[in-house]
Amino acid sequence: MNAMLHTIEVAGIIAFASSGFIEARRKRMDIVGVFTVAFITAFGGGTLRDLLLDRRPLFWVENQEYPILIFVLALIAMPFLRHLRHAVTESVLEWADALGLGLFSVTGTSLALEAEMPVFICAMMGVITGIFGGVLRDVICNEIPLVFRRSQLYATCAFSGCWVFLFLNWLQASEALSLLAGICTTFALRILAIKFDWKLPA
Amino acid sequence: MNAMLHTIEVAGIIAFASSGFIEARRKRMDIVGVFTVAFITAFGGGTLRDLLLDRRPLFWVENQEYPILIFVLALIAMPFLRHLRHAVTESVLEWADALGLGLFSVTGTSLALEAEMPVFICAMMGVITGIFGGVLRDVICNEIPLVFRRSQLYATCAFSGCWVFLFLNWLQASEALSLLAGICTTFALRILAIKFDWKLPA
Amino acid sequence: MNAMLHTIEVAGIIAFASSGFIEARRKRMDIVGVFTVAFITAFGGGTLRDLLLDRRPLFWVENQEYPILIFVLALIAMPFLRHLRHAVTESVLEWADALGLGLFSVTGTSLALEAEMPVFICAMMGVITGIFGGVLRDVICNEIPLVFRRSQLYATCAFSGCWVFLFLNWLQASEALSLLAGICTTFALRILAIKFDWKLPA
Repeated sequence: MNAMLHTIEVAGIIAFASSGFIEARRKRMDIVGVFTVAFITAFGGGTLRDLLLDRRPLFWVENQEYPILIFVLALIAMPFLRHLRHAVTESVLEWADALGLGLFSVTGTSLALEAEMPVFICAMMGVITGIFGGVLRDVICNEIPLVFRRSQLYATCAFSGCWVFLFLNWLQASEALSLLAGICTTFALRILAIKFDWKLPA
Repeated sequence: MNAMLHTIEVAGIIAFASSGFIEARRKRMDIVGVFTVAFITAFGGGTLRDLLLDRRPLFWVENQEYPILIFVLALIAMPFLRHLRHAVTESVLEWADALGLGLFSVTGTSLALEAEMPVFICAMMGVITGIFGGVLRDVICNEIPLVFRRSQLYATCAFSGCWVFLFLNWLQASEALSLLAGICTTFALRILAIKFDWKLPA
Repeated sequence: MNAMLHTIEVAGIIAFASSGFIEARRKRMDIVGVFTVAFITAFGGGTLRDLLLDRRPLFWVENQEYPILIFVLALIAMPFLRHLRHAVTESVLEWADALGLGLFSVTGTSLALEAEMPVFICAMMGVITGIFGGVLRDVICNEIPLVFRRSQLYATCAFSGCWVFLFLNWLQASEALSLLAGICTTFALRILAIKFDWKLPA
């Protein structure tokens, strides 16, 4: 179970960072910008959650190998970034991103629950963990956050997954089962939303 | 007194959230964006103050009914938002916003004073509490913050009200009187600034 | 030594604040905007570092004379800001900014080290302290952060100086020597980068 969560985590971080790489390159940033935007995309949501919950040490402080990983990826990837979009098929990135969204959101909710937050706040903290990296990426790149525009369901998938986790937890299901069900719900909803172009009414 | 402050608080939150609703709709955001922007507008200032002062639990964590209120308002209001600007007269929103600005700023100063901050910092914390929700709303909506542009006095009203509160407090007036005088100063200045189109020199 | 560091600190704060003044004026902000942007440029980086490290009281809370200094400067400078770019020669600002960058970055790293952060995180915290004031300034002024665009080396100078400090510290050199070497490295690299128009490859 833990090994699986760890694998999902690394896949999610790389997917989130990649969307930062791509966006930063599109804005013609140099390597400092590329690294920073990738870093903020990957860890911004979790950092905001930890600031709000007053948790220390921060996730990426405790695991300095993750910032180093992104730093090395940025160094290696710079010359190839122009071609990254073509090299990695779009759908691989989307699947990894959907997995990361599920994992980050549901573990965010779980951490808020541990900190004895009220239940609606727990769901919010999960969504914040999942989506605010991308929000900060777009703010720094001077765009209106993608997740707030009329695109395929994204935050809604995270919100649903968090509630599934909270509901199973309330039924006193095991931690592992609740996490897994929440992550799968988010993942499945997100993949379906992309496939069938589901959007919120406006 | 407490009941009155509570009423002002709810009015202020609804007014702040409404300006978030309207701005988010103007940017064609979907309901996720509308809720998030409204939430950040209403609670962003207080959250930043609490992070700076290291106060926990956060205001909206302790009172989860407020985020839920905004969530429900966002759900209900979405279909009508196109018409909200006309339905609610502009001046009702302005009055509620001015009340909220006064309340949030002066209570922000009062909390900083409790945390034994130096006096100029207390005034700054008050202004931060009052205006940073709107600043974050504009940053996320990709606009230069309205409150920094040459518009009718806004932050200045909050700043003045905070100093009135600090001055009365220093004279050892009762908490209730000091709060009330500060809120009324901010409110009155803001309404006058709108009526007579007072602006800062530039 | 301490007197020297203090002088550099004041010079750096004034240089950082000035870049905030100038940018805010270019965006036609009023005095509230000018003060806030200058304040955030000067103290934003250190504040973010302190939030991430959970250090309190914040630097500018402990030294309320610094916010007051910027407030007074903003009041006095407003009428002259149109001419500030010409009155103060560009290179005086650049030298003071390079000194400030060196001081803020290296002391940021030193504080992270005191808080027993892992070594790569210490270097990151230094760079965050040095550059995030400017990043926040640009985000609020609705620009893509200058430091992420292809301009002359900036963050890279701070990063190098932080590693020099960490390396000397690891060799158990005295605190004073390590600080000084780190600051001089950053300063010298930055001045050279401006003189010879050094940029990162893109």
